[in-house]
Amino acid sequence: MRNHQEMKNRIRVGILGATGAVGQKFVELLDGHPWFEITELIASERSAGKSYRDATGWLGRKAIPDTMANVTVRGVKEKSDCDIVFSGVDSSVATELESGYASEGLSVISNARNFRMDPTVPLLIPEVNPEHVSLIKSQTWPNDGFIITNPNCSTVGVVCSVKPLFDAFGLQALHVTTMQALSGAGYPGVSSLDIQGNVLPFIAGEEEKVETEPLKILGTFVDSVPSPVVNNEEFAISAQCNRVSVVDGHLISISVRFKENASLEDVESAFRNFNSPSEVAGLPSSPDEFLTFFEDPNGPQPVRHVMLGGGMTVSVGRLKRCSVLDYRFVALVHNTIRGAAGGAILNAELLVSKGLIKSRAN
Amino acid sequence: MRNHQEMKNRIRVGILGATGAVGQKFVELLDGHPWFEITELIASERSAGKSYRDATGWLGRKAIPDTMANVTVRGVKEKSDCDIVFSGVDSSVATELESGYASEGLSVISNARNFRMDPTVPLLIPEVNPEHVSLIKSQTWPNDGFIITNPNCSTVGVVCSVKPLFDAFGLQALHVTTMQALSGAGYPGVSSLDIQGNVLPFIAGEEEKVETEPLKILGTFVDSVPSPVVNNEEFAISAQCNRVSVVDGHLISISVRFKENASLEDVESAFRNFNSPSEVAGLPSSPDEFLTFFEDPNGPQPVRHVMLGGGMTVSVGRLKRCSVLDYRFVALVHNTIRGAAGGAILNAELLVSKGLIKSRAN
Amino acid sequence: MRNHQEMKNRIRVGILGATGAVGQKFVELLDGHPWFEITELIASERSAGKSYRDATGWLGRKAIPDTMANVTVRGVKEKSDCDIVFSGVDSSVATELESGYASEGLSVISNARNFRMDPTVPLLIPEVNPEHVSLIKSQTWPNDGFIITNPNCSTVGVVCSVKPLFDAFGLQALHVTTMQALSGAGYPGVSSLDIQGNVLPFIAGEEEKVETEPLKILGTFVDSVPSPVVNNEEFAISAQCNRVSVVDGHLISISVRFKENASLEDVESAFRNFNSPSEVAGLPSSPDEFLTFFEDPNGPQPVRHVMLGGGMTVSVGRLKRCSVLDYRFVALVHNTIRGAAGGAILNAELLVSKGLIKSRAN
Amino acid sequence: MRNHQEMKNRIRVGILGATGAVGQKFVELLDGHPWFEITELIASERSAGKSYRDATGWLGRKAIPDTMANVTVRGVKEKSDCDIVFSGVDSSVATELESGYASEGLSVISNARNFRMDPTVPLLIPEVNPEHVSLIKSQTWPNDGFIITNPNCSTVGVVCSVKPLFDAFGLQALHVTTMQALSGAGYPGVSSLDIQGNVLPFIAGEEEKVETEPLKILGTFVDSVPSPVVNNEEFAISAQCNRVSVVDGHLISISVRFKENASLEDVESAFRNFNSPSEVAGLPSSPDEFLTFFEDPNGPQPVRHVMLGGGMTVSVGRLKRCSVLDYRFVALVHNTIRGAAGGAILNAELLVSKGLIKSRAN
Repeated sequence: MRNHQEMKNRIRVGILGATGAVGQKFVELLDGHPWFEITELIASERSAGKSYRDATGWLGRKAIPDTMANVTVRGVKEKSDCDIVFSGVDSSVATELESGYASEGLSVISNARNFRMDPTVPLLIPEVNPEHVSLIKSQTWPNDGFIITNPNCSTVGVVCSVKPLFDAFGLQALHVTTMQALSGAGYPGVSSLDIQGNVLPFIAGEEEKVETEPLKILGTFVDSVPSPVVNNEEFAISAQCNRVSVVDGHLISISVRFKENASLEDVESAFRNFNSPSEVAGLPSSPDEFLTFFEDPNGPQPVRHVMLGGGMTVSVGRLKRCSVLDYRFVALVHNTIRGAAGGAILNAELLVSKGLIKSRAN
Repeated sequence: MRNHQEMKNRIRVGILGATGAVGQKFVELLDGHPWFEITELIASERSAGKSYRDATGWLGRKAIPDTMANVTVRGVKEKSDCDIVFSGVDSSVATELESGYASEGLSVISNARNFRMDPTVPLLIPEVNPEHVSLIKSQTWPNDGFIITNPNCSTVGVVCSVKPLFDAFGLQALHVTTMQALSGAGYPGVSSLDIQGNVLPFIAGEEEKVETEPLKILGTFVDSVPSPVVNNEEFAISAQCNRVSVVDGHLISISVRFKENASLEDVESAFRNFNSPSEVAGLPSSPDEFLTFFEDPNGPQPVRHVMLGGGMTVSVGRLKRCSVLDYRFVALVHNTIRGAAGGAILNAELLVSKGLIKSRAN
Repeated sequence: MRNHQEMKNRIRVGILGATGAVGQKFVELLDGHPWFEITELIASERSAGKSYRDATGWLGRKAIPDTMANVTVRGVKEKSDCDIVFSGVDSSVATELESGYASEGLSVISNARNFRMDPTVPLLIPEVNPEHVSLIKSQTWPNDGFIITNPNCSTVGVVCSVKPLFDAFGLQALHVTTMQALSGAGYPGVSSLDIQGNVLPFIAGEEEKVETEPLKILGTFVDSVPSPVVNNEEFAISAQCNRVSVVDGHLISISVRFKENASLEDVESAFRNFNSPSEVAGLPSSPDEFLTFFEDPNGPQPVRHVMLGGGMTVSVGRLKRCSVLDYRFVALVHNTIRGAAGGAILNAELLVSKGLIKSRAN
Repeated sequence: MRNHQEMKNRIRVGILGATGAVGQKFVELLDGHPWFEITELIASERSAGKSYRDATGWLGRKAIPDTMANVTVRGVKEKSDCDIVFSGVDSSVATELESGYASEGLSVISNARNFRMDPTVPLLIPEVNPEHVSLIKSQTWPNDGFIITNPNCSTVGVVCSVKPLFDAFGLQALHVTTMQALSGAGYPGVSSLDIQGNVLPFIAGEEEKVETEPLKILGTFVDSVPSPVVNNEEFAISAQCNRVSVVDGHLISISVRFKENASLEDVESAFRNFNSPSEVAGLPSSPDEFLTFFEDPNGPQPVRHVMLGGGMTVSVGRLKRCSVLDYRFVALVHNTIRGAAGGAILNAELLVSKGLIKSRAN
């Protein structure tokens, strides 16, 4: 149906870790994408050579896209010929694999934590810190390869919701308590015997990420010579992370202390009036609303509101004064869409729109 | 089996609101109680005249106690002839009904919120503020009647867990995020369609209680003349309350700021070494451990730990430094036992042990 | 956007019981319908005069359609001026209300049980017994009013899945065990305290419906004079109904005994090759596939497959020989779409396509 | 507290697969057992040498028994010195391991499926077929070793509930639909992402067991020479097995066809009047009631009734005529107590009471 011209200019995408939970989400979200075309499904040697359908315990509510079901999975040791690699692999192998693809000149858009805090690697949320993409100038992979990363899923919920407040009033302190969904643990992830009718008060490694990543994301980009840098923000973040029996959607209770005075109306206005930067608003995966503000105290709720904006909109509600810090509210983020695969795709779209990723097919 | 002497001295108990969720818990917990004997099951006129079995949609995992199943329920308008009334009625009727019983000279042990903040009414947790019972001297009901109250279930979890820290280091601020169980909403309470796989970020009226009640409970008792008073504490409390899909057990994420410096070891020691006052430790409903401290980061969890100490032990875990305040931890309280019926029974036991409630049967 | 001509010919729809769970589903599913336009939202006097948004505790995952949110709800006592009334009211009031609308000459498409077994009323599933619509000729409401009904939600799952087998091999016996979703009980419906981690082995009135309604639906239409009749089928049906902790989708374990011999391949072919009658296949709410057959033993599952065909496709799987009867399988039906509001809309579409419902607006 | 004489005569028990879900249940249930004393905790080489606390991800609601927590786990390759081995190992290793212990002269009480259908091995439920124990005379392990087995957990629910009917009216056909609990799949078992708000219509290998094991259990013991045998019953059994989101307790919908006529009252009487054989009734793990009959159509329910009789009582309810077979009812069995570890312990108690297991310690 697509004409030849269109095809020639489409950007060829490989999904690294295609059979895992995040990898599957990439496949689901990229089905019908106007710019990107999955040309490689890459997984461990165990899956290599099988059809994607056979290699994958597909978790999606919708069936595997027809165009992908019979694609033969490539092993991670095979050479890739695509423009972008979206990486959903586990951190235990991410350093080696992602470095490998970057060395070959590919654009690596990673969901893993390994390179997030590397000072040369953008930790990117397009609506929050689009200027950080230029950090890739300081990367030294051969053949123009580079790595960009998206933050931890809970970090995304925190940063997206505080960004308007950070811009308007400055942040002195951030106090976070999460109620995180099961899909955040991957598959098979959390045993049903552990979570049925229960809450787990601990998620290994999670609190550390929430307490550090926002400082980089909200940091100031300095286009210094010879290499640009990001000067991290400095404010206190405290996080305690819980797992609840919800499939998708991290609900996060947040208190903030501002640098400047703000009335309740000021804060509500900041939430309501924040708009995506114009360079982001037109991207294919950019939602109509970056943030939705709930006046109704019953919102947001995971099952009812997690799919707003196709899972790319972050919801905030329950705004009120905090007797200890300044204000409290709750935020809801779709952890596997905005907080993982969807966020990574939007990152890639930003890079394409800036001319930093191009189709090299010919 | 019991001899006549024993029977004569047993304290006769009426359960007000006996068919409701809290009333049923009183019936369940008082089955076999060494001091108290339920002699009246009191409910609305709709239930009056029916057997307790027929009037009640029994919720318990164990059957209705044999001794209670065939008791005829009394209407609230009948005159009562007992020593104590345990009240589990809704706040919409509690003021009128509880006043009525107090006026008749009964000891009213209430779970309702109506009289909690009345300056003449003890808001009592025996291990925390046993001296507050003497506030009843300032009550002016005829015939020696009086009212004492136990706190909101979430307040109980907060206050029991911070009490050792309050004693050791003083409190400047308390930051609370709750994940509350379904049984706290009574029966039928929360619709399954609202909570299946979901979290509700709002519980009407709850946050106000958690932000005020602790200040009274931790207040200083002054045995002034002519009437004793409690001088409420003054520190900031911030609460945000969520409902999760758990049957029993409120899990609460708490951050504290102290007046004095304390190392992590100091805080852990305060938790581990806090003991019930000796006047409480021997009471029938007093658990072996008032607090249990979890070193294992996976504890406490509602389904696994809510029944420690028969539901009367409060659990704390996940202790760590808080980057924003001083320390963070989570607490778990059985909301319908320690946080409601069990707490009320322990309150009554304290009063009996102090000679403030006596059997008037003859 | 729509031109005047189009608007003039659209069929004006009233939703009776618009604020209830089924009524809301009608509103959700009719949003954007090519033929039907909701012109009246009708509910009890308690809701009358309020905006639909204010009168309704909206349950949907998507927001209330913009076109409906501010519509003023009519009371049931007001006179209606529309072409069709879709009824989602409770059986306690359905007889009176639905009769009233039929008497005024309206086409009543009812989801209530009251008229289902009336011999003059079609109990209709378009793909199964479209010829039954002609039963309305035997109705004697003034002004050309009539009533048609759709079956109980579990009946729908049973009948849709056995229809191909009934046609191919005849039915001697049907043995049914249901695992029914929470939304079938309406809102607030089942208390979370009753169903959390539980199964309820009883649903009042349900088994009787499943044991009788299929005999009428699968009955033979005889176009006798003066009035057509349906001769009910006669075979044994046994049903036991359970409630499980699933939001949407009744899963039903079914065993069948045939009149004729059939191999496993024959049965599978019957499932796979059954097609919607051509008069139904093109209707707006008709799914691409009436039945989906799962070879994978892990399907169908409520959360993964309930939305196939927009909730209008019935899924079957786990086909195998039954040692006691002839064959066993499981069926999955979306209880509030195919089994209620969606089924009723498809019924109305069938009547429109047959010229039995027309726009009377002018 | 126990005197020396008592200690000398206690029977020394080894738990094979002690760190697994079933093994843990053995440890939990044997805590404080009057006859048995766990002297060995046996697990894979991976766990060997560790303390039981460290080797085990303890699942129980109560803590690990103090007497067990610090016991050093033995590897399966070490020689055992105990009287009984309770086996909770996976079927992949059960044949080899259980044979090994039987060869050494130990009494092996197995929960695995491997030897269940071996004609020389009792498939035992003490209240149902106690005479089958004598089958062990036909076993030829050296040193008086032998193996007995308990049935699959669903089989146990089916057979316990139909036993009174089988005795009274004979069985021609049995039609079974299960709704099985999560704990039946072991730990970690079912992923929360697969079962949250869902039903799974397939459990690998389960239906085959339910369709065959009852025929052996209900078979006739013939004390033939030289070796006794069991002649299996012959009637049709059809099973379809589902997984539901319940922690403990398989709920089973059962239809039966009898050989003889029976009124509804006859069937109810058979359920109500069935008593454990006297040789079983006095055993330590025998519940007061083998079966509980529910007149209330709302019972039995997993969360409310699974712990009747300490988890050893099987509940039946929803009795009614079946239009297809003769009668229908539902049964509830605690799958890891009556259906696994508790059943195995009762089996061992029966053997001890018959003098077939003795303490060999001296």
